[in-house]
Amino acid sequence: MNFTQLKKLIIHADTKIVMLIMDGLGGLPIEIGGKTELETANTPTMDALAEHSALGLSSPAGPGIAVGSGPGHLAVFGFDPFEYEIGRGALEVLGVDIDLLPGDVAARGNFCTINERGNITDRRAGRLATTEAFELVKILGEIKLNGVEFIIKPIKEHRFAFVIRGKGLGSDLRDTDPLLNGIAPMQTAGLDDASKRTASIVNQFVNKAKFLLAGKYPANMILLRGFDRLPEVPQYKDLFGLNAAAIAVNGMYKGVSRLVGMSVLPVEGITMEDEFAALEKNWKDYDFFYLHIKQTDTHGEDGDVLKKIKVIEDVDTLIPRLIALNPDVIIITGDHSSPACMKSHSWHPVPLLIYSKNVREDGIKEFGERACSRGSLGIIPAKDIMLIAMANAMRLAKYGA
Amino acid sequence: MNFTQLKKLIIHADTKIVMLIMDGLGGLPIEIGGKTELETANTPTMDALAEHSALGLSSPAGPGIAVGSGPGHLAVFGFDPFEYEIGRGALEVLGVDIDLLPGDVAARGNFCTINERGNITDRRAGRLATTEAFELVKILGEIKLNGVEFIIKPIKEHRFAFVIRGKGLGSDLRDTDPLLNGIAPMQTAGLDDASKRTASIVNQFVNKAKFLLAGKYPANMILLRGFDRLPEVPQYKDLFGLNAAAIAVNGMYKGVSRLVGMSVLPVEGITMEDEFAALEKNWKDYDFFYLHIKQTDTHGEDGDVLKKIKVIEDVDTLIPRLIALNPDVIIITGDHSSPACMKSHSWHPVPLLIYSKNVREDGIKEFGERACSRGSLGIIPAKDIMLIAMANAMRLAKYGA
Repeated sequence: MNFTQLKKLIIHADTKIVMLIMDGLGGLPIEIGGKTELETANTPTMDALAEHSALGLSSPAGPGIAVGSGPGHLAVFGFDPFEYEIGRGALEVLGVDIDLLPGDVAARGNFCTINERGNITDRRAGRLATTEAFELVKILGEIKLNGVEFIIKPIKEHRFAFVIRGKGLGSDLRDTDPLLNGIAPMQTAGLDDASKRTASIVNQFVNKAKFLLAGKYPANMILLRGFDRLPEVPQYKDLFGLNAAAIAVNGMYKGVSRLVGMSVLPVEGITMEDEFAALEKNWKDYDFFYLHIKQTDTHGEDGDVLKKIKVIEDVDTLIPRLIALNPDVIIITGDHSSPACMKSHSWHPVPLLIYSKNVREDGIKEFGERACSRGSLGIIPAKDIMLIAMANAMRLAKYGA
Repeated sequence: MNFTQLKKLIIHADTKIVMLIMDGLGGLPIEIGGKTELETANTPTMDALAEHSALGLSSPAGPGIAVGSGPGHLAVFGFDPFEYEIGRGALEVLGVDIDLLPGDVAARGNFCTINERGNITDRRAGRLATTEAFELVKILGEIKLNGVEFIIKPIKEHRFAFVIRGKGLGSDLRDTDPLLNGIAPMQTAGLDDASKRTASIVNQFVNKAKFLLAGKYPANMILLRGFDRLPEVPQYKDLFGLNAAAIAVNGMYKGVSRLVGMSVLPVEGITMEDEFAALEKNWKDYDFFYLHIKQTDTHGEDGDVLKKIKVIEDVDTLIPRLIALNPDVIIITGDHSSPACMKSHSWHPVPLLIYSKNVREDGIKEFGERACSRGSLGIIPAKDIMLIAMANAMRLAKYGA
C-alpha cells in the first residue's frame, strides 16, 4: 500500500490516539540468562495494560540496523527512514531546539582563526569556551540581509547551528570549510538555480561575519558545512487526517514531530510530570498525541542500568494519568533500543504494546522484551504501527468491497 | 535500505562470523502429530547453544516458494534470489565443479546423432554411457581457438557442461539445439555485439567438433543450449567489508560462494570432519566462514529419514570444534527445507539460530522447527540473516543521528 492508497482509506472518527515513546526503551539482559531493564523494572500498570493489549516487537529500520533518534522517530511516526533521510546539518539544528521549518536551509558552523593573509590557522579557534561563543553568536545575529532571516545558536565550544529562512532557497551548497589549515575559507557555490541564489546570500553573510569578527581573535572567522534542509515528509493532517500534537522537552524531538506536521505543545517545566500535565491540559484539542520520554535513552547510553530501570518505573506511575483520560488507543514503545550494557543505540527490536478496546488481546500479563516476542503482532516494521493504531481508532475504512 | 545505503553503514571490527549451512535442514513430522528430523535428532550441543541464541525461521525466497540450491544460497548470503537469478547453464556448470568465473559463458551440451545429410536422428545419441562420454569430452578438449579457453566436463550419459572463458564475451546466444529430430543443428547467433563475436567462436568450435566426432557414431555431433553466465553479484569484501571464505565439498556450493566473492578453501578429503579441519586450519586468515553440509539434503531428497537424522546428530558432535574457535557470531540454518517425507526441496521456512554475546537470547532450550517458530526473530527473509549477523559482529554503524 502506498500513501495515495492509504489516504483514500482515511475516515473521521471521534477517537484519540496516544503514542508514548520511551526513547531507547529496548534493552538486553544485565547478566547472562538474566532480565532486561524493562523486564526488571516493577511496572504494575504497564503489565496490567499488556494483558488487554496486543504485544509485539517494533523494528525501526529493518533487521540489524541501529538507528539514531531522527530516523527512529520518523519510523514510529509511519515513514520508511531510508526513504526520508534527515541530514547532519538539519539534525544539529533540531538538536539545539531551533524551530526548523520546511524550506529552511541549515548548516553546521565553526568559529575559526585566520591569519593576516586570510588563511586558516585553526579550524576550531582554539576550541573557545562555550560562553565566549554565546557572545560571538550575538554579533552574528546582528547581520541582516534583504528577504531572508538568519537563525544562529551556539552548540558547544566553537560549534554553532546556522539557519537561513526565506522563500525559494536551495540547499545544494558547497561547504565553505576546506577541512584543513593553511588556506583561506572557500566561497560557497550552488548547484542549481535556487542554490546559486542562496550561495550568494551565504557568501554575503560570511563576508559581513569576517568584518564583524575581525578584532575577535582567535575566533575571527566562520566556516560553514553540511548544508541541507528537512526532507519533505507527508503531513499528519493530510496523510492520516489527524490533528496531532507533540509533547517533548528536547529540541530534536520537537523538530522531528513538527516535520510530520504535529503541533508542538508548550511544556511548563522539563520533567515527565510536566509532560503529562501538558497532555492533560491539551487533551480536548487534538486527536493524536505523541509524548516523548528522553531519560530512558540517556541512562541507556550512559550504561546506568539502575537509573534506566528507575525511569521506566517512574513512567509506569504516571500512566494512570494517561489512562484516566480514556484514550481510544494507547501505543507504548520506543524509537530504538539502547541497552545499558552496550552504552549505545542498538539494532534489537523494541517492545511494543497497542491497547484499545478493539484489539485482539494477547492476555500476556507482562510488558517486556521476551513477553513481546510472544505477542500476536510479531516483529513489525515501526512504520506500520500507525496503521494498526488508526484501525483500532476506527479511522480506516474497508479497502474494496 | 538498498546496498548503497548499507555500504555506508559498514565499519570494521576484529570479529568473526561463522555461517553453518546444513543443506535442506528443515523438515516435516515423520508421522502425523510427530516430530521432524531435526526435532527427533539428539542434538545436545545445538540445544545448549539455542538457549543463549535468538531463534527464528528463515524464508529463502518468500512464502510458499521452494528454492534450488543456487537461489537458496544466494538468499542466505544476503541477496534477493529473484533479483539475482542464476540460469540453468551456469547451474549445470557449477554442479560439476567447474570453477566458473564472472565473464565466463556457460551452456548445457548434448552429444547427438546426425545422419549423412547432417540432420539429427537422435538428440541424445542413444543416451550413451557416461564412460563413453568421458572419452568424447577428451576429444572436444583438444579444440583450440585463439583468445579463448574451453572447459568441458561430462555430466551424465550424453550430457556435458560447456564453458568459454575469455575477454569481452557475450551470453545472449541462441541455442544450437533445435529440440527436435529430422533437421540439422542450428548455428548459434548473438543478439548484441559481444554475443555476435562469441557466437562466431561457438560456431567454429561446433564445426571442429563435428569434424573430430565424425567417426564416433552414434555420438557424432554436439548440441548446445541455455547459454548464460553468472549474474554480477555484489562482492562480500565490497558490500560487507568481509574477508570471506567458503568450505564446501561439492562444486555448486563452491561456485555460488565464489560468485559473491568468497575464497574457496581447500578441503583435504570429503567428510564433514575434513571440512571442520579446514575451518580450524584457516581460522586466522578470514573474518567470515561459510561451512556447507551436503548430506542433510541428500538424505532428505532420498526420503531417508533415519540417515538425515544421523547426519544432523553427527554435525552436532562436530559443533564443539567450532565453538572452541570462539567465533563472535554463529549462524546455524539451511538454504531450504528438504523434508524426507516429501523427497524433495520444499517451501517450509528453515530453522534459524543466531548466537552471539550481543544477541537478545530467547532462552528456548531446543533447536527445532517448532522451537524456532517461537523465537524472537520471527520468520525473516533469508537475505536479512547477514544484516543481523553483521550487527552482532559490531560491524554496522548507527543509521542517522
